[in-house]
Amino acid sequence: MREVAVIGVGMTKVGQHFDKALRDLFVDAALKAFDDAGNPNIDALYVGNMVAGEAIGQSNLGAYLADYLGVKVPAFHIESACSSGGAAFILGVLGVMSGYFDTVLVGGVEKLTEYPTQTTTLHLAGAAEQEYEVYFGASFTSLNAMIMRYYMHKFNVPREYFAEWPVMMHENATKNPYAQLRFKTTIEKVLSSPIIADPLTLFDCSPTGDGAAAVIITTVENAKKITDTIVKVAGFGMGVDSISLAMRNELTTLAASVNASRKAYKMAKIEPKDVDVAEIHDAFSIMAILAIEDLGFSEKGKGAIDLHDGKYAKDGDIALNPSGGLKARGHPVGATGVYQIAEITLQLRGDAGEMQVPDAEIGLAQNIGGSGSSITVSILKRER
Amino acid sequence: MREVAVIGVGMTKVGQHFDKALRDLFVDAALKAFDDAGNPNIDALYVGNMVAGEAIGQSNLGAYLADYLGVKVPAFHIESACSSGGAAFILGVLGVMSGYFDTVLVGGVEKLTEYPTQTTTLHLAGAAEQEYEVYFGASFTSLNAMIMRYYMHKFNVPREYFAEWPVMMHENATKNPYAQLRFKTTIEKVLSSPIIADPLTLFDCSPTGDGAAAVIITTVENAKKITDTIVKVAGFGMGVDSISLAMRNELTTLAASVNASRKAYKMAKIEPKDVDVAEIHDAFSIMAILAIEDLGFSEKGKGAIDLHDGKYAKDGDIALNPSGGLKARGHPVGATGVYQIAEITLQLRGDAGEMQVPDAEIGLAQNIGGSGSSITVSILKRER
Repeated sequence: MREVAVIGVGMTKVGQHFDKALRDLFVDAALKAFDDAGNPNIDALYVGNMVAGEAIGQSNLGAYLADYLGVKVPAFHIESACSSGGAAFILGVLGVMSGYFDTVLVGGVEKLTEYPTQTTTLHLAGAAEQEYEVYFGASFTSLNAMIMRYYMHKFNVPREYFAEWPVMMHENATKNPYAQLRFKTTIEKVLSSPIIADPLTLFDCSPTGDGAAAVIITTVENAKKITDTIVKVAGFGMGVDSISLAMRNELTTLAASVNASRKAYKMAKIEPKDVDVAEIHDAFSIMAILAIEDLGFSEKGKGAIDLHDGKYAKDGDIALNPSGGLKARGHPVGATGVYQIAEITLQLRGDAGEMQVPDAEIGLAQNIGGSGSSITVSILKRER
Repeated sequence: MREVAVIGVGMTKVGQHFDKALRDLFVDAALKAFDDAGNPNIDALYVGNMVAGEAIGQSNLGAYLADYLGVKVPAFHIESACSSGGAAFILGVLGVMSGYFDTVLVGGVEKLTEYPTQTTTLHLAGAAEQEYEVYFGASFTSLNAMIMRYYMHKFNVPREYFAEWPVMMHENATKNPYAQLRFKTTIEKVLSSPIIADPLTLFDCSPTGDGAAAVIITTVENAKKITDTIVKVAGFGMGVDSISLAMRNELTTLAASVNASRKAYKMAKIEPKDVDVAEIHDAFSIMAILAIEDLGFSEKGKGAIDLHDGKYAKDGDIALNPSGGLKARGHPVGATGVYQIAEITLQLRGDAGEMQVPDAEIGLAQNIGGSGSSITVSILKRER
């Protein structure tokens, strides 16, 4: 199998971009990635996006964005809800591994503002099961609240422990120029913010926002011609599970996360403890805790306790979400998975600025679709 | 590069399936493909679909359908408008070529009935350019009518010649048990049917319908263990062009079709004249004629004349659309490209029943997204 490396990244600030259309955002990120990679020719474009069809009525985003970017190469639009970006990245890597393409651009883009909140919620609800969840009034927040409530009961974890996650994320985001929520918060503020679905408060939930990210990947052989710092795609996996929570074997373990990560670790020939830095999919505080456990960083039931003990701080055993994560960098749905790859790449290159985790060599990105129905895990490794 | 073969196919009848949900249709087709392939284990699922997010509010179709099918493997939803099926097939083939997956199922599914025609039209319009086409009232039919009008003017081809296409398609469909419109028609009926967008009449347009198709692909090495008749994926290509007609260099040539097919021919080491049977994307009569020319079967401007001369009949030089094509087999949008692969596979195996083209060895499938913004061409070859 051909080995693959990331040679360029680009991101836009996550936020409310009233002055930019979806394709403007995408091109902004893509051009930065081209620039970062030394403007190579690309053979294909892979785009992760969830709701452009519903929100702006534009389908066939592959061709649409390839055209606007000025590169009429084979172009594919991949959708797997909030994990669209992670899925697009994996398919892009497979494209290069196949030998059919040498160099490809993987991008993710989402435009959520300029629509009424109700409309946005309706579109995003497509990631839940229509017949057995959405139809009966279950929102994403309520589904996550149920998981959190049950987790707190099962493992006897106090509510306050979860609040430490948003506090750390907001702190991290102050160092990230691309983050949406660049202000600090406190445990008291998290706990006293409005309840969205008990026990989740406003500050436990990631914001909606617009954004685009892009990465350019090629063979390791090609990468060596242009740089001495190779960011290799060492391993990856995708796991799926029932969309409906009611059909799952368990509520407090995301089987898709376990399966995806075990496959990725095996391919990369590493263990969870070898990871230096990770970007995990903390759409809600409970999702961060489940990720910490399902990725094998903490024992089941101990994630929030290890967080409290500082294991996942920037100077801890594994630095989690130095970007601020979905919570504070923001969550431009179909683009999030590509932001994560871009962020991990910068970390491994030592180019993460104020976000930098010292001497990070192995990084992991975990991207969740729905309430855990499709999860991608990618492991990048720096080689010099 | 690993060589890839199709080892199983399954289709549902195209039509109005009021008694089946989208996932029922998909599973029906997938189980037939499993059965046909001797029930192998699969490593991944690739699904082509265009409008489930808009029409039934269900996104993340990969995980959704993997779950309902009972195979919790990595699952990807690919969307490129009407070429979603063809794009999913190419990505599935790349997955096997990469060596990461050995055996994968590629499916396509679409559910269009049970929604008001207006809603369906609205969703499908996402394949056109929202800002510069749809917003100003251009429908797909009117865009195709413009191309046809200009073609007739430029090449001085009489209207009647185009009517021969639907007549041939309806005739072919009477032999296809999966076809939606299994009745014959005449040139007079085509010409006197209601005008949809002058010069296109009702009988020049493909119908909307529900349907699902699935194919199972694996390495040629694996295929040889279970069958002596290898249907090899000999070549493939994807071309893209501007979505908006106004931005194209030319109206009467689909550059994406030219580019995709030249890449596929080169990879398969064949020339257009070597093709024995092809399934082309005849969403409208004019699209069939452009396909005939852009694929290199006829000279530009001569497609309708060669059709009139019988070159593309079942006993002609190249048998086109023995299934009845989009015109009469039907056009379940995101599934169409997978139907084509399944049909060509049956032809090459000699299993096409009454549709059979004698001793077909090389087959081609051409799948168009939008008015030619993304086009896939795949070439299959029988080896014994």
